[in-house]
Amino acid sequence: MAGRGVTIRDVAAHAGVSLGTASRVLSGHPATSADARARVTQAVTELGYRPNAQARSLRLTRTHAIGLLVSDVRNPFFADVAHAAEQAALGADYVTLLGNANENVEQQDRYIETFLMQRVDGVVLAPQGRGSGSLEALIESRMPVVFVDRTVEGFDVPSVTTDSRPGIEEAIASLTAAGHSRIGYIAGPQAISTGRQRYDAFIDALPRHGIDVDPSLITFGDFQEQSGVRAAQQLLAAPDRPTAILAADNLMALGALAATRQRGLHIGSDIEVVAFDDIEWLAHFDPPISVIAQDAGAVGRCAVELLLSVVEGEEPESVVLPTTFIDRSTRTKS
Amino acid sequence: MAGRGVTIRDVAAHAGVSLGTASRVLSGHPATSADARARVTQAVTELGYRPNAQARSLRLTRTHAIGLLVSDVRNPFFADVAHAAEQAALGADYVTLLGNANENVEQQDRYIETFLMQRVDGVVLAPQGRGSGSLEALIESRMPVVFVDRTVEGFDVPSVTTDSRPGIEEAIASLTAAGHSRIGYIAGPQAISTGRQRYDAFIDALPRHGIDVDPSLITFGDFQEQSGVRAAQQLLAAPDRPTAILAADNLMALGALAATRQRGLHIGSDIEVVAFDDIEWLAHFDPPISVIAQDAGAVGRCAVELLLSVVEGEEPESVVLPTTFIDRSTRTKS
Repeated sequence: MAGRGVTIRDVAAHAGVSLGTASRVLSGHPATSADARARVTQAVTELGYRPNAQARSLRLTRTHAIGLLVSDVRNPFFADVAHAAEQAALGADYVTLLGNANENVEQQDRYIETFLMQRVDGVVLAPQGRGSGSLEALIESRMPVVFVDRTVEGFDVPSVTTDSRPGIEEAIASLTAAGHSRIGYIAGPQAISTGRQRYDAFIDALPRHGIDVDPSLITFGDFQEQSGVRAAQQLLAAPDRPTAILAADNLMALGALAATRQRGLHIGSDIEVVAFDDIEWLAHFDPPISVIAQDAGAVGRCAVELLLSVVEGEEPESVVLPTTFIDRSTRTKS
Repeated sequence: MAGRGVTIRDVAAHAGVSLGTASRVLSGHPATSADARARVTQAVTELGYRPNAQARSLRLTRTHAIGLLVSDVRNPFFADVAHAAEQAALGADYVTLLGNANENVEQQDRYIETFLMQRVDGVVLAPQGRGSGSLEALIESRMPVVFVDRTVEGFDVPSVTTDSRPGIEEAIASLTAAGHSRIGYIAGPQAISTGRQRYDAFIDALPRHGIDVDPSLITFGDFQEQSGVRAAQQLLAAPDRPTAILAADNLMALGALAATRQRGLHIGSDIEVVAFDDIEWLAHFDPPISVIAQDAGAVGRCAVELLLSVVEGEEPESVVLPTTFIDRSTRTKS
């Protein structure tokens, strides 16, 4: 095959750049000039150089560290994603440096700058808000980047996300079949793709099950616990309170459970609470909490696989994983 | 005062080394020779150089990143420590790169190598087991290091730990006052300082409350959930089963709660479970779970404060924070 015997040294000589520059361009490091990138890219095309066959030599210039920026390290969903990602990365001889954006754009940007400065070989990140200058700079730097959990409009980056629709559809079907017609919803921030997608899925599912959308049953939180407490208090204080509450992530569900107990309401008999994310703790509640599950382990592993394929010069397709409803309500056991 | 006007340039000139070498030695970076370290140290002494006054110039050679290696990122105690540490570090203009040892010495060692290679300005770590060659190399590198949560015998490193004794003493006092005389214990690994200290505290507390130590009521886990399930199953299968179980961390307590429910036992009426670590989830169980609390936020903040003082050339004292028993059992409410 063409290009079999071509080495990175040939590419560097043909492009008229140093071996180090050629290596940096090919491994996607930020410290390269537009001119060097153009010359190396042209040399690769003209010589038929195939970087995959050269992985071993390229690796010499790598730090073998990747950056993983999660939204909230105290959210068990992201802890599970981080653990799975780190194990997948170690299997490929990469160490994962974890950063916590804490659901905050400025903190995300600090981590992006640090990852660039530390010359990690690539970054997996759950982007905050609607993007930022640092996020643009990261992507323009040619550092390999993969989005996880969330996407940002206008950024053409491979991503691993889940499709919230099937899980929310099943949850609404199950709740309405059990006689619930007043279903409260604690939505995530609408500046975040998962917040918008889950909100839309909820709004779309109701009419299919014969329920009109009632804006007084919809509240908005920030994916962190205290906002779930406040949102549930608001829902439960209404004269015609909901008989079931669906929360768009597990921390807001935890807040809703606290607010429910504070009002002396019992899960199962007085009210149902359905959480997003199947984290261990919710299965151990008594009674256990029904959840819309996404496979955090698969999300983490898949994000690292995508990133490593970008590092190897490939252009992987984005991946969308499914969600399912896990019904733990006592009524189904009778 | 002596040394007021002495600059790092004077130190470099006096030591006969470059400014960069002097700076690296003074900021504790690993890439320095023994000879350079000796010459710079001697120059510092002879000139009366005071690094604290020079923090601004030293900073130019820093990465402004610190490494934080936790034992288990999926353990909410460490997630809380990491979050508090990261906020404290950001307040001092440092970004925290988080690593997860996953309760595993080899994985710890990979992170240590990465932190050294990435030239972080210092490392906070919860050491695994009884130490390792990489841990020795880290400390010999003169990289500023602080231990958190755990210590390792033979390593003279400033640390932030908690004293388990008062919390365990209060827990045993409360349980015996409520009539419990068969108290099961799920111990942590005895190769880890916290595992040993909590075990010793439990064994010492029993006789003070009129209870003989019964080895059949003591089991050992690895601080992760599945070991808690197995240990509790063993305790609950005994003909004369304990009426209360104390677990040496929150994940083993979670496993014990699962095993308890599997046997159809109800918390509060049939058996008490007391967990180590006051994490949010345990307060939201119904009934809520009593805990031996350590202040994870204070642990994280304090570790970063100690590390930054080491970075500034100081020699801080180790800090031991208290533990307290939080009794959430229903009996206290009657």
